[in-house]
Amino acid sequence: MADSGWPGCAKSLKGVILDMCGVLYDSGEGDGVAIAGSIEAVKKLKTSDLQLRFCTNETQATREKFVAKLRRLGFDISVAEVFSPAPAAVAVLKQRGLRPHLLVYDGVLPEFDSVDKTNPNCVVIADAAEKFSYQNLNEAFRVLIGLEKPALFSLGQGRYYKEMDGLKLDVGVYMKALEYACDLKAEVIGKPSPVFFQSVLTDMGLQPHEAVMIGDDLVNDVGGAQHCGMKGIQVRTGKYRSVVV
Amino acid sequence: MADSGWPGCAKSLKGVILDMCGVLYDSGEGDGVAIAGSIEAVKKLKTSDLQLRFCTNETQATREKFVAKLRRLGFDISVAEVFSPAPAAVAVLKQRGLRPHLLVYDGVLPEFDSVDKTNPNCVVIADAAEKFSYQNLNEAFRVLIGLEKPALFSLGQGRYYKEMDGLKLDVGVYMKALEYACDLKAEVIGKPSPVFFQSVLTDMGLQPHEAVMIGDDLVNDVGGAQHCGMKGIQVRTGKYRSVVV
Repeated sequence: MADSGWPGCAKSLKGVILDMCGVLYDSGEGDGVAIAGSIEAVKKLKTSDLQLRFCTNETQATREKFVAKLRRLGFDISVAEVFSPAPAAVAVLKQRGLRPHLLVYDGVLPEFDSVDKTNPNCVVIADAAEKFSYQNLNEAFRVLIGLEKPALFSLGQGRYYKEMDGLKLDVGVYMKALEYACDLKAEVIGKPSPVFFQSVLTDMGLQPHEAVMIGDDLVNDVGGAQHCGMKGIQVRTGKYRSVVV
Repeated sequence: MADSGWPGCAKSLKGVILDMCGVLYDSGEGDGVAIAGSIEAVKKLKTSDLQLRFCTNETQATREKFVAKLRRLGFDISVAEVFSPAPAAVAVLKQRGLRPHLLVYDGVLPEFDSVDKTNPNCVVIADAAEKFSYQNLNEAFRVLIGLEKPALFSLGQGRYYKEMDGLKLDVGVYMKALEYACDLKAEVIGKPSPVFFQSVLTDMGLQPHEAVMIGDDLVNDVGGAQHCGMKGIQVRTGKYRSVVV
């Protein structure tokens, strides 16, 4: 429980935002596995009076593919209920008339189909995994350093995450690398960015105090939500008890 | 001229430390080219009463190969006069009983021949260029994160440098990446580290106010020297006038 005001606040509760990996399922080979009780919990929430949204920093697949995986695991989830950084970035890019140079995982590229990418005037990075080669990072750097007003967007700011074959460096590490190279500050899109949480609240038509965020990450889920005026609850699954990443 | 005390201080001057790339020569295809007047300047200094040393952050080759290149260009330089980060790192590692995991350019590996590299208890990174792959950076990260007291040494902290085919990310960028990933502070070996400049002064048997550092980099050469109590002079060749890297 991340706040002493609970459970008194439950009376004003109108919406629930759920993190996905580590809350609904554990990643692993293939689709991963559903966490015990989570499929039923989502069902219960859907039959309640509470609004429900899902909020993930997943950037290696499109929402369509990601939701298809969750549905195969047994979850009743639709694409419209899922908030992830790539579509949020697309909205920001269009709003500001920016044309990105993308350093992202191939699987998420279709999310950017509608964005003009000619003659780039900003750089967008996401968890690109093995695409974070020296050549590709250099290329992103050269685009940035060649701009009059360099703008770097980072889809998340994670340090590392765990996969079946060990720990992997996350996008935040490469964000810091490019920030130092170009002497600039990146704009983070995704959790724990307040703008990102606010977009979910806006979609539900709720005020921060009317919603609760449930996640396994103390910084990105609980801290980010509290920073926005929401309640934050940390589950004891996923990365709970492990080092905060 | 980086200090108003000049030229009065010239009377106490007993030693000169020269940066190499951008002061003696410009890098480029093959060995690069000697900068006009620099071969003669080194000759003059050698026939003067002043002691002379060379100080470089070059880490892509052994001192032997590096000096051989300078000699081919026409410079009268010997290995014993050249101070570079790799041998300085070797001294530190041996002093502290550390066994490094190396993420460095192949060309500089022989400098570490005498160091025990089994069962690593620290990580040493240098300008590894294309060896800075996602896999290699992940490997260095896993070594660090698996240590009880993670220690990271970075041979230099440059942001980027220029080669014939464009700008290239330098070691400092990857230092920042690993610092963020592991939530630690790296120890920099090489310019502008005071320890590095002090080792050159010790070799000459001089006090800081008796020596002058001449380089093309305002931060690593001039600033580093001044931080140690030496005079620092910036030449108008090399990276002078360009963005400080």
